[in-house]
Amino acid sequence: MEIKKYLGDRKRLVEDKLHSLMIAAHGPFSDHIEAMRYSLFVGGKRIRPILCLASAEAVTGDPVLLNEALVTGCAIECIHTYSLIHDDLPAMDDDDLRRGKPTNHKLYGEAGAILAGDGLLTFAFELLARPGASMRTTRQLEIIRLVAEASGSLGMVGGQALDIAGENTNYPFEHLKTIHRSKTGALIRCAIQAGALAGDAEDQQVDQLTRYGEAIGLAFQIVDDLLDETSTTEVLGKSAGADKARGKATYPAFFGIEETKKLAQQAVEKAKQALKGFDTQPTLLVQLADYIYDRTH
Amino acid sequence: MEIKKYLGDRKRLVEDKLHSLMIAAHGPFSDHIEAMRYSLFVGGKRIRPILCLASAEAVTGDPVLLNEALVTGCAIECIHTYSLIHDDLPAMDDDDLRRGKPTNHKLYGEAGAILAGDGLLTFAFELLARPGASMRTTRQLEIIRLVAEASGSLGMVGGQALDIAGENTNYPFEHLKTIHRSKTGALIRCAIQAGALAGDAEDQQVDQLTRYGEAIGLAFQIVDDLLDETSTTEVLGKSAGADKARGKATYPAFFGIEETKKLAQQAVEKAKQALKGFDTQPTLLVQLADYIYDRTH
Repeated sequence: MEIKKYLGDRKRLVEDKLHSLMIAAHGPFSDHIEAMRYSLFVGGKRIRPILCLASAEAVTGDPVLLNEALVTGCAIECIHTYSLIHDDLPAMDDDDLRRGKPTNHKLYGEAGAILAGDGLLTFAFELLARPGASMRTTRQLEIIRLVAEASGSLGMVGGQALDIAGENTNYPFEHLKTIHRSKTGALIRCAIQAGALAGDAEDQQVDQLTRYGEAIGLAFQIVDDLLDETSTTEVLGKSAGADKARGKATYPAFFGIEETKKLAQQAVEKAKQALKGFDTQPTLLVQLADYIYDRTH
Repeated sequence: MEIKKYLGDRKRLVEDKLHSLMIAAHGPFSDHIEAMRYSLFVGGKRIRPILCLASAEAVTGDPVLLNEALVTGCAIECIHTYSLIHDDLPAMDDDDLRRGKPTNHKLYGEAGAILAGDGLLTFAFELLARPGASMRTTRQLEIIRLVAEASGSLGMVGGQALDIAGENTNYPFEHLKTIHRSKTGALIRCAIQAGALAGDAEDQQVDQLTRYGEAIGLAFQIVDDLLDETSTTEVLGKSAGADKARGKATYPAFFGIEETKKLAQQAVEKAKQALKGFDTQPTLLVQLADYIYDRTH
């Protein structure tokens, strides 16, 4: 299948599911819910839920299990969205623009944005623990644990804390890798792992997909660093050059543009290598890996 | 048992468990973890985990299940602590003092405090989903769902959003009740419900303890409103009279001090009524209900 069409189709599927999952939320809390909805539906490539679903598709064709992976991916998208809302706050990165639109706190105020983020994070775990899930309850708990670890203080939140603390300081490349792995890599790896678990993958498949996920997470962050340096605010939908302006370490700052492109390509190759030995070559995952590198052009 | 001794013993038990649960968290993220630890161990009555454990004690004497209830209560305490950190932020209630000590953002900065809160919220779900829990996995998932609902956008976070939005506006008493029920009541009720589930209570017992928890949650908030009006900053460990200064609606503002005391007592009586018909009268829960009212003197 043509990858662009696939991505468009899956994006619609994810957004339809997010809409239906959010419908339950209503009542006297409407301004707050509105703030959550705003950031959840303002845009985004939905790459995490798409990877979660693609990972499940690599191990099963069962529509019931694929639906489980879709809901799991939506929960992870809620966590990703909350992290953007909090990262954009004046006390953090102080960004006015995200996905070409005003950031949450510009519209709902700082208190509103903090609470919208808190609400989305909590809602994610409500989704993951929902009753009547068709997977085994031990699997459901395993996914919750995985998501909590990847997004918590030894994962995404810890990475953001390191990132904020490290602005305008010179730190070694190893430290940048730790930040990338925790701040961005962990949740992407987790999306792919959780998709495999939701799809009831064999242990061997989970291992391979985990290695794929780690490499994809790294590639994704390297490409993000590159785009911050080489793209424009219009194309990115957020302020280009923001990392450099804040004195943040990035791959291009350490290695220059050309070498950084090579490192991105190596990470993509490593991701594809991890899939060798699958009964059926998971074409979609290979194409998704290439797609991440293609964003650099 | 004398209630003051009981509370002191249980407080130590909760804090020991919290310490051992937090020990796993370490590594390069130390400043961030330190900020989490600060608020978690700066003080507090630990009333939510104590209620969670007491609820389990009312239905079982099995030490393994009581340990489950203790861990569950610790997770809920992490959520309570995160909510205080975020509520104290300059963008929210802008408080410098909490439990007689500087608030989190005074020591770790706004970004650090936001992330410490995010980390604690996420850690709570990691604890609730921990592997090797001795309860049935369906029960474990039920507790996670319950906690997510009580602390999310239709519970605690939604209540805080309503509270912030309602400052300096005149709203009817029904609206105050909605704020109290969601902002404070939901998590207290949830602590008691979750304790019952962790203790493997019968459905009938869960129903009774849920009604007990609802009444206790209400009593607790009425008493908090009273203390804000009648106590001193020294005794409270936070700024007394802060609600009035912020133009927040409170029970005393609607009913005056004496009538508010009566309403608190009524809620405590209702809590005790809910326990009628238990095979063994759960003395501890009765004493805890009375203790909440006694704080008004």
